[in-house]
Amino acid sequence: MRISKLLGERTKEAPSIATVKSQALLLRAGFIKQVSNGIYTLLTPAQKVSLKIQNIIREEMNKIDGQEVLFPVVMPREMWDESGRYTSIGEEMVRFKDRTGHDMLLGMTHEEAAVHLARNTVKSYDQLPFMIYQIQTKFRDEARSRAGLIRVREFTMKDAYSFHTSQEDLEAYYKRVYDAYFRIYKRIGLKNVIAVASDTGMMGGKIAHEYMLLTDIGEDSIAICPKCGYKANVEVAKGILDKINSQPEQMKEVYTGDAKTIEEICELLSIKPNQTCKAVCYAMEGEQNKSLVVFVRGDLDVNEAKVKAIIKRDIAPKDLDDTNLVKGNIGAVGLKDDNLVLLFDESLKGENNLVCGANKEKYHISGVCMSRDLPNIEYYDVSKVKDGEGCVNCKDGQLKIYRGVEIGNIFQLGTKYTSTMNMTIHDKNGNDINPIMGCYGIGIGRNIACIAEESGDDKGLVWNMNVAPWEVEICPLRLDDGLVKSKAERLYEDLKLAGVDVLYDDRNVSPGFKFADSELIGVPVRVVISPRSLQENNVEISFRTTGEKMMLAYDDALNYLKDYVAKEKF
Amino acid sequence: MRISKLLGERTKEAPSIATVKSQALLLRAGFIKQVSNGIYTLLTPAQKVSLKIQNIIREEMNKIDGQEVLFPVVMPREMWDESGRYTSIGEEMVRFKDRTGHDMLLGMTHEEAAVHLARNTVKSYDQLPFMIYQIQTKFRDEARSRAGLIRVREFTMKDAYSFHTSQEDLEAYYKRVYDAYFRIYKRIGLKNVIAVASDTGMMGGKIAHEYMLLTDIGEDSIAICPKCGYKANVEVAKGILDKINSQPEQMKEVYTGDAKTIEEICELLSIKPNQTCKAVCYAMEGEQNKSLVVFVRGDLDVNEAKVKAIIKRDIAPKDLDDTNLVKGNIGAVGLKDDNLVLLFDESLKGENNLVCGANKEKYHISGVCMSRDLPNIEYYDVSKVKDGEGCVNCKDGQLKIYRGVEIGNIFQLGTKYTSTMNMTIHDKNGNDINPIMGCYGIGIGRNIACIAEESGDDKGLVWNMNVAPWEVEICPLRLDDGLVKSKAERLYEDLKLAGVDVLYDDRNVSPGFKFADSELIGVPVRVVISPRSLQENNVEISFRTTGEKMMLAYDDALNYLKDYVAKEKF
Repeated sequence: MRISKLLGERTKEAPSIATVKSQALLLRAGFIKQVSNGIYTLLTPAQKVSLKIQNIIREEMNKIDGQEVLFPVVMPREMWDESGRYTSIGEEMVRFKDRTGHDMLLGMTHEEAAVHLARNTVKSYDQLPFMIYQIQTKFRDEARSRAGLIRVREFTMKDAYSFHTSQEDLEAYYKRVYDAYFRIYKRIGLKNVIAVASDTGMMGGKIAHEYMLLTDIGEDSIAICPKCGYKANVEVAKGILDKINSQPEQMKEVYTGDAKTIEEICELLSIKPNQTCKAVCYAMEGEQNKSLVVFVRGDLDVNEAKVKAIIKRDIAPKDLDDTNLVKGNIGAVGLKDDNLVLLFDESLKGENNLVCGANKEKYHISGVCMSRDLPNIEYYDVSKVKDGEGCVNCKDGQLKIYRGVEIGNIFQLGTKYTSTMNMTIHDKNGNDINPIMGCYGIGIGRNIACIAEESGDDKGLVWNMNVAPWEVEICPLRLDDGLVKSKAERLYEDLKLAGVDVLYDDRNVSPGFKFADSELIGVPVRVVISPRSLQENNVEISFRTTGEKMMLAYDDALNYLKDYVAKEKF
Repeated sequence: MRISKLLGERTKEAPSIATVKSQALLLRAGFIKQVSNGIYTLLTPAQKVSLKIQNIIREEMNKIDGQEVLFPVVMPREMWDESGRYTSIGEEMVRFKDRTGHDMLLGMTHEEAAVHLARNTVKSYDQLPFMIYQIQTKFRDEARSRAGLIRVREFTMKDAYSFHTSQEDLEAYYKRVYDAYFRIYKRIGLKNVIAVASDTGMMGGKIAHEYMLLTDIGEDSIAICPKCGYKANVEVAKGILDKINSQPEQMKEVYTGDAKTIEEICELLSIKPNQTCKAVCYAMEGEQNKSLVVFVRGDLDVNEAKVKAIIKRDIAPKDLDDTNLVKGNIGAVGLKDDNLVLLFDESLKGENNLVCGANKEKYHISGVCMSRDLPNIEYYDVSKVKDGEGCVNCKDGQLKIYRGVEIGNIFQLGTKYTSTMNMTIHDKNGNDINPIMGCYGIGIGRNIACIAEESGDDKGLVWNMNVAPWEVEICPLRLDDGLVKSKAERLYEDLKLAGVDVLYDDRNVSPGFKFADSELIGVPVRVVISPRSLQENNVEISFRTTGEKMMLAYDDALNYLKDYVAKEKF
């Protein structure tokens, strides 16, 4: 590719919309252009990286016996009514009527399509296990798209679906996918990747893992035990809390005036947050007249994912003006209202002498002892693990909280889709059974952004040889010099013929300009051909990752580069 | 790939939904499964063919300096308001509101996206010409999907857009694409392909070509002159009609009773259709109270594409009950109604002694002489060329009408999109100009269907080596024979290692069953390994296209097959 004809502007400054490094670099280097909120066009360099990542994913999926298929983006409502997801999925799924008035949707994932394809086609246990996958466009109407390709509404995704006769078989296959994903991340050049236990969310099923790139720009929080290696998304992570173990005191009302928040109460009464009981109020999906109040120890936060999993419906923060609750003074003692559902976090279990709201303006109650004052309560794990909690796995380490971006996920789905959609096969004994499914996703664009985020430096993007938009860049200096030009053109043509993916900077601009662009785009190897180097019949080779430089005889360059590129790919 | 795990059923009979050969074969061979009207899932063999076709297209587009990008499927209304197509395109474009109430659409083509990407990015004439293309999912809500993958609502398409500083430059590039398309069809194995001048339809622009696979299942009609090679879609084709040249007679009313159609009138009056004047009535878009009546010579049909181009709006057949017209007795003589727009075809110009309706029940008028009885009329070319008309190009040959399926199209767009969307660049003199565009499309799925339609035989599908789902199939007979099994497995593994795409029939079923499946899927080369052939340490090689068979030493098979596959690809 001649850079003079390459569509896309490269700029020194990032546009103001850029909020993270990867977004700034991809915009500055002319890789992406925003079309609408969360919707981007990929320019040639980004699409080349995307195709290379897709091919690596394809290879790894084929290695674990995957069969590539292509499901439709647009699907009719009926299949999704069968699974129940036509109504259970919210506004993030696009629904429309076709010209005949038929309800259609844009598929967010393709469990329904996979079962539709497999049922009637697969009839017997000996056709299992199998895995089908596709690489395809998805549109999800995310409420909050952000950070360039990190969270978008439209993206290319690999989604895979496996079918099994038993849980054991699923688990064995799940392990193969688990390992394949790590191979994929390694090959595309992501380094700081971990797999963590995760919430199954709208997918159904029980066991699930998310692959996380650990990075400060992540929206997810991950609890990791440095002692035993326990890792989990805080949405599902459990920790062991320090208990206070103070002797029970008398309950009494305390005048707290305008102090409402935990911080204000603590300051007023000179206590610590873990000596208080926090109340958080939610609206529940499908329960317009009722409110949910979740109580957690004051130093903790409510984990909404855990709450949803327990009450089995969606929740949203509730405006207290619509209730009889006293804002900032809600307490569990004496709180009786048929329109309230109360949920107590395990952090409160057995605690003594807590301060909680008195359910009237300007007053709290101190000395609340859970087992004495609120007997017969069931406790649930509904709080977020926080930094420093004890590890529930080894009982020894202290959990540390990291930020991460989810770059892939795998789920053990069970029979949710095969049972609701009535897919049965004959088992060995001739009985009808519902196959057990797994599903496995990777978003391509987000992985491109994560590589940029993790590997990019202050000069620009950095790609490994497997996914770089071009493998080698030829930078002739002084193209008005006939010898420079002819040598550069010849090396360009020879490298292309040898199957090397070459970018050729054929512009008559200054060396500084060329080098800046080259570093911004991030081609792994640069060949500088200048009048001076040619005096000794040499070219200068430099490497984007290390910045190392070396001189090489022009006549050896072709073979050296061909071999180097081949050697660096894996 | 082991066939025992290949998802998809192969059947002897085609399901009843199949209306054409390609659809029947693709369904029978387990290549596709219908999800909804005009919406299919591609199973692994079809997706493999699709990816191979995509790669050939990619290579050919890159050879003519194309840059691959990826535009969004979902776009905001604004860009399409700029071009005017948000309102000018009908129900075939899906529109919906996103969660914020914003008007969005599913892109049918991407001229708007291409201009959105290029404007502001490209500023000067010396950055032109360039061509950008993508390979991506399209959804078009076709009123009539049909014939399997021939006409669907969702499909994968390559669409390309070029930008030029002058019409000459566009024409030079257009020729390169024109040739590249023929290379693509040749490489994917389509034979009977021609390029014809075509209607530009909703794309705007003036010059356009469609690539047609000539086949009886085609919906399009193409006029070809065997003398000079003139070729055009009948939507735009012109011919030279025989004129009758009879002496003018008197007009008189004739009682025709219940005779209404041209055929009935001709039989009753013992005349030929070309001695009548046919009237066809249409509703016009945006003109609820008016009707359009098109008059053509009775042996011809109205060409609606030509009518639309002349009146510059959409038309649809009109129910005569909503008008004052007398069904079956409409005639141009004496027809006066402010709510009617009349359009006369050139076939009528100068004709004498025509029979036309008398605008009252049971009567026609004979002896109508156009120039005498309907003076001062403007004539337009609004009829369909028919078999046997004279060639307008060489004035010598007689046009012959063929059926064809459109398998690609190329358009010279002019500045329709760059001017409406305000994309300007500086020309050599520093003046702002709108670049001139071309656009170029190929639907992948339809090409798969066309290969199946053209090359498929009574045994099944036939693919060339470039696009075959697998290049070689290994068919061991008697897998219970240890030697057969070990030799087959070894050849399978060796071929895979050598980079050959192999299908391995690892099932314990009869030879007849294996051969039938093999021929149905259409793998180009089959290797049969049997106890008998192994007695002389041989395998049997057979070729799907010719049916030829040959014996080969087992030890030579790997190299022979590797070389044969490489040699057959181009």
